[in-house]
Amino acid sequence: MLYFKNDYSEGAHPALLKRFFETNFEKLDGYGEDKYSQSAKEKIKQATACPDAEIFFISGGTQTNQVVIATMLSRHEGVLAAQTGHVACHEAGAIEYTGHKVITLPQYEGKINHNDIASFIDAFYADESHSHMVYPGMVYISHPTEYGTLYTKEELTKISETCHKYNIPLFLDGARLGYALTAETDVTLPLIAELTDVFYIGGTKCGALCGEAVVFTKKNAPKHFTTLVKQHGAMLAKGRLIGVQFDMLFNGSFYTDICRNAIETAQMLKDAFREKGYKFFIDSPTNQIFIILENKQMEKIKENVCISYWEKYDETHTVVRFATSWATSREDVEKLIELL
Amino acid sequence: MLYFKNDYSEGAHPALLKRFFETNFEKLDGYGEDKYSQSAKEKIKQATACPDAEIFFISGGTQTNQVVIATMLSRHEGVLAAQTGHVACHEAGAIEYTGHKVITLPQYEGKINHNDIASFIDAFYADESHSHMVYPGMVYISHPTEYGTLYTKEELTKISETCHKYNIPLFLDGARLGYALTAETDVTLPLIAELTDVFYIGGTKCGALCGEAVVFTKKNAPKHFTTLVKQHGAMLAKGRLIGVQFDMLFNGSFYTDICRNAIETAQMLKDAFREKGYKFFIDSPTNQIFIILENKQMEKIKENVCISYWEKYDETHTVVRFATSWATSREDVEKLIELL
Amino acid sequence: MLYFKNDYSEGAHPALLKRFFETNFEKLDGYGEDKYSQSAKEKIKQATACPDAEIFFISGGTQTNQVVIATMLSRHEGVLAAQTGHVACHEAGAIEYTGHKVITLPQYEGKINHNDIASFIDAFYADESHSHMVYPGMVYISHPTEYGTLYTKEELTKISETCHKYNIPLFLDGARLGYALTAETDVTLPLIAELTDVFYIGGTKCGALCGEAVVFTKKNAPKHFTTLVKQHGAMLAKGRLIGVQFDMLFNGSFYTDICRNAIETAQMLKDAFREKGYKFFIDSPTNQIFIILENKQMEKIKENVCISYWEKYDETHTVVRFATSWATSREDVEKLIELL
Amino acid sequence: MLYFKNDYSEGAHPALLKRFFETNFEKLDGYGEDKYSQSAKEKIKQATACPDAEIFFISGGTQTNQVVIATMLSRHEGVLAAQTGHVACHEAGAIEYTGHKVITLPQYEGKINHNDIASFIDAFYADESHSHMVYPGMVYISHPTEYGTLYTKEELTKISETCHKYNIPLFLDGARLGYALTAETDVTLPLIAELTDVFYIGGTKCGALCGEAVVFTKKNAPKHFTTLVKQHGAMLAKGRLIGVQFDMLFNGSFYTDICRNAIETAQMLKDAFREKGYKFFIDSPTNQIFIILENKQMEKIKENVCISYWEKYDETHTVVRFATSWATSREDVEKLIELL
Repeated sequence: MLYFKNDYSEGAHPALLKRFFETNFEKLDGYGEDKYSQSAKEKIKQATACPDAEIFFISGGTQTNQVVIATMLSRHEGVLAAQTGHVACHEAGAIEYTGHKVITLPQYEGKINHNDIASFIDAFYADESHSHMVYPGMVYISHPTEYGTLYTKEELTKISETCHKYNIPLFLDGARLGYALTAETDVTLPLIAELTDVFYIGGTKCGALCGEAVVFTKKNAPKHFTTLVKQHGAMLAKGRLIGVQFDMLFNGSFYTDICRNAIETAQMLKDAFREKGYKFFIDSPTNQIFIILENKQMEKIKENVCISYWEKYDETHTVVRFATSWATSREDVEKLIELL
Repeated sequence: MLYFKNDYSEGAHPALLKRFFETNFEKLDGYGEDKYSQSAKEKIKQATACPDAEIFFISGGTQTNQVVIATMLSRHEGVLAAQTGHVACHEAGAIEYTGHKVITLPQYEGKINHNDIASFIDAFYADESHSHMVYPGMVYISHPTEYGTLYTKEELTKISETCHKYNIPLFLDGARLGYALTAETDVTLPLIAELTDVFYIGGTKCGALCGEAVVFTKKNAPKHFTTLVKQHGAMLAKGRLIGVQFDMLFNGSFYTDICRNAIETAQMLKDAFREKGYKFFIDSPTNQIFIILENKQMEKIKENVCISYWEKYDETHTVVRFATSWATSREDVEKLIELL
Repeated sequence: MLYFKNDYSEGAHPALLKRFFETNFEKLDGYGEDKYSQSAKEKIKQATACPDAEIFFISGGTQTNQVVIATMLSRHEGVLAAQTGHVACHEAGAIEYTGHKVITLPQYEGKINHNDIASFIDAFYADESHSHMVYPGMVYISHPTEYGTLYTKEELTKISETCHKYNIPLFLDGARLGYALTAETDVTLPLIAELTDVFYIGGTKCGALCGEAVVFTKKNAPKHFTTLVKQHGAMLAKGRLIGVQFDMLFNGSFYTDICRNAIETAQMLKDAFREKGYKFFIDSPTNQIFIILENKQMEKIKENVCISYWEKYDETHTVVRFATSWATSREDVEKLIELL
Repeated sequence: MLYFKNDYSEGAHPALLKRFFETNFEKLDGYGEDKYSQSAKEKIKQATACPDAEIFFISGGTQTNQVVIATMLSRHEGVLAAQTGHVACHEAGAIEYTGHKVITLPQYEGKINHNDIASFIDAFYADESHSHMVYPGMVYISHPTEYGTLYTKEELTKISETCHKYNIPLFLDGARLGYALTAETDVTLPLIAELTDVFYIGGTKCGALCGEAVVFTKKNAPKHFTTLVKQHGAMLAKGRLIGVQFDMLFNGSFYTDICRNAIETAQMLKDAFREKGYKFFIDSPTNQIFIILENKQMEKIKENVCISYWEKYDETHTVVRFATSWATSREDVEKLIELL
């Protein structure tokens, strides 16, 4: 059975596991105070060219979104996100659980645009009864988006300018950031650090067993952030678990080196889909490929390949997702292409 | 200055104030255990023809929506509401504050329809990842809606059937219920009690100084409801404050008798608007009238009349609301008509 | 049946009800923007000699405690209170519902003392793992306390100094403040305004049908406080309901004038208890009298008098509470004394 | 520098790391649906002799306590715990964050007893105003306790009987359960499964890099538990991270085999302390040793040994903790003994 269902179906890059072995019996302080966590933070500061960065490690993406949004918003505020944003759809109400509304904006291939943000906020303040409404308090974007698409430097710059014009922070969810950085793009890690107020660098989907690195870019981490992380139940006693992994991921260009494989294998696959006349639901430049399949054809493929149902297209067609990752082998891609 | 800004700009019907005087020095138990609250509940049971009703009094509408929704939903559930529903827009995130998502459906003149409810729930359960999503756990409608419109018996019946098919409760926000019952309608109070699982009868906007009567119609009040009301800070020590008022409001047909004035005065006003060629934004059968005014015309009217800004219509026009109430005098309506 | 069960068993002082009648048909803005609310605020500013005061009206005591504490605390903070404090015991977890811990301190006849506050905070910061604990973020006291006792000027001053030394606000719950101000005391309303950061003046138990006046004394109301009040469901559409009452209560010395009756009638009663050899559980200078009754004696009294069970004293004795109020008649007190 | 500061200062048992390598490239489903998680659950069912067990893996202890307590309690309920219980003290208010009160009971060497539970609940229901209070809805105990002490079979049985008499669940926090099971005790894993309603088996402090196994023992997992775990941000995409580890930990008697080392090395240390005349603060049978040190002596030891400050004993003495673990080497223990 081939497996293109998602980008978190393997363990971790072996180099990370190896580091667990090598460091295993060193006696380290808990709660992220260990030297590997510290070293990883220094490396991330360098990779982001952001000396003011305040960095924290959290075990997973939903947890990270929940903690960051809940601690950065004031109580009267909600977060603006695309209708298709992960926080709006697929986190079981984790944001609302913390008492905050997710205010949705239109999405264009998974992205939001700066005009819609500005229009929303202008209309909000123009409404005479806005003090009876949830204030827009933050903008959330994902990069790559849930549809694998990427913001351009220009788009991101305009969103950033809009947020700062209205004095609300911009938060970028980088669960798959490794695949954004290695796709064809003019958006770099330092640029993200410059334009956003907080973002996270995904580990779980980009080579680690678990873990995301939250980067507050402007010395703007919420006061008592570690206490708040603890209050959310999100603090690991063995902070080394994530620290050791990110210390390896940000050793030189290791993070992007290993992520590039997902882009390359996705490209092979997209070329094959195109050549064989498959219909793309969306043209994603990263590691998620959305294809419209005739339902019978889908059933046939699923006999040999694990893929993700995405959404119903029409009565006889379905949108499915093929995902590659740092771990996808060219051999598997070739086998899949043969089956297409 | 004439005043058509809203339906809560006067105090209470004098008959209610008179009851305060008459009962003032009777020594009564607190927290709704007094005899007037008990008597009011009995009268409401009769008026709703719902012997199984469990009735509670809460001071205001947002508080009522918050307490009812938060206590009836399970933690993994959210509430379905129109995009324009009060709980979705104008309660400053009171529902999300309790940890629950408001899931919005399309609105048609302020109403939702049963097909959209069914489609949403079907699509939800068809989605393979729905266990990572907020479950639809209740349907919220307002009657009259925020646009003054009313559900017909057929519409309400279908919504009720849909809810019960999917085994989720139907909650009807009756902040202005008195004006729904006295407009041209085939929806009666007993019908509402039959078709909904919980609803509230608005006092604040229908003749009382404050207070709403929540009616759980199927012996289905959440367990320990009074403790939960207390936990929300929503329990009044002097329960008589609301009990005495509802005991008078539901004395015979007093509630609808006094509310009818709003419908009659609104009708006078609508006739005049129509006659003078004003453009209606929506054709409401109740006490809220939404008119599209040219901006200069609006400014002129506002010199003599307090009205509510509703929303921008286009660059040169604005939607405004004229509201009547149980207290609106025909004399004021006539004065307003002269000014139009 | 005589009624000494509590101080909220009558309606409102007739002068307040009269004001409802007089102002009833004036068309006023909602949500506390009416002129009576504004006027009441001005009068309270004068009565508290606190020109920087920011004043808001909320319908009841638990609601007020919940909103004030939840909006003044940061998320990592809890509130310090006496073990017997209302927020710690009798609000059904209303504070915890907002996500904050109530940290209890020892009580001495219902009061806490400044040394315990200081010791607690010192020990907290001395604990190496305090970042894994709930930070002390506010001190809550009630005056009169739940046992009817009063802080002296010296005690209150020291508590205030301690709070400010540690840079946390002092919140005084004045649900029965009228009875504190009219008892034998060196604590005045201006002194309370000076020493606390926020306090509330009780209406519900001191002559009003409902309503408490929250006073932020140092221009320190939480930002967007009205939106937060709305979010808690605590905002009344007809703000006049409380505004009109407080405008009358703070007309000259009316508030203390009417509350004095509770002190005087309580004094009559205490003299009688003392004379007849009853045993006091606590020596309260205000309107709540706690007496230890032999159980059979209690049952006998309860045949003719409604009183409150307070707590079990021992196998054969019970602590009960007799409460007077602004409305207690001397005639009733005399009848009760005859029965003792 | 010797290191006896805590029991989470090393990585994982090498056998677990080895399993990461061996299983690393198997393509597995996420969110705990992988075969290793399934296998681990089967093994735990067997080890607990509890075929009705419903088992879930969560990354850390505070997260587990938070999710279990918040999802098992009804909204009007709080959890009873020792004053020194982890949930009461050292989780930064994680329980209150979910809206629930931690109600504290007296502790005796870290333990609570069944009489105090019964007395509390009896007094609660005897209080006429208990509907205005937080209901006791669960009992939380830790085993070993925060002081390293253990409940006996008799104590645990009585607590269990008391809970079930009052119809509230018993939750046992087993963050260090491996050290409870391998100390001198008559409490076995099957007994725990029998007497509690839910408990967790600690991984983080007992040989794993992270992870705790929650066991609902009576087919009583809260409905939609995985959705609620997701809502708390507590669900790992790569469920294998914990599944693989527990599958190894519960391979035969591996879990207790590796934990026994902590007990044996603690015993060596306790013998030495006793022999050398050190004063024990508490007599713990497990891997945490609490010693009262004269302050200068403490400073001297800390030059060579990392230990935990626990609490101030008196002006000149301090309570400190020495902890051993599955990873403590006899060599280190001997070196430490030499230094004493």
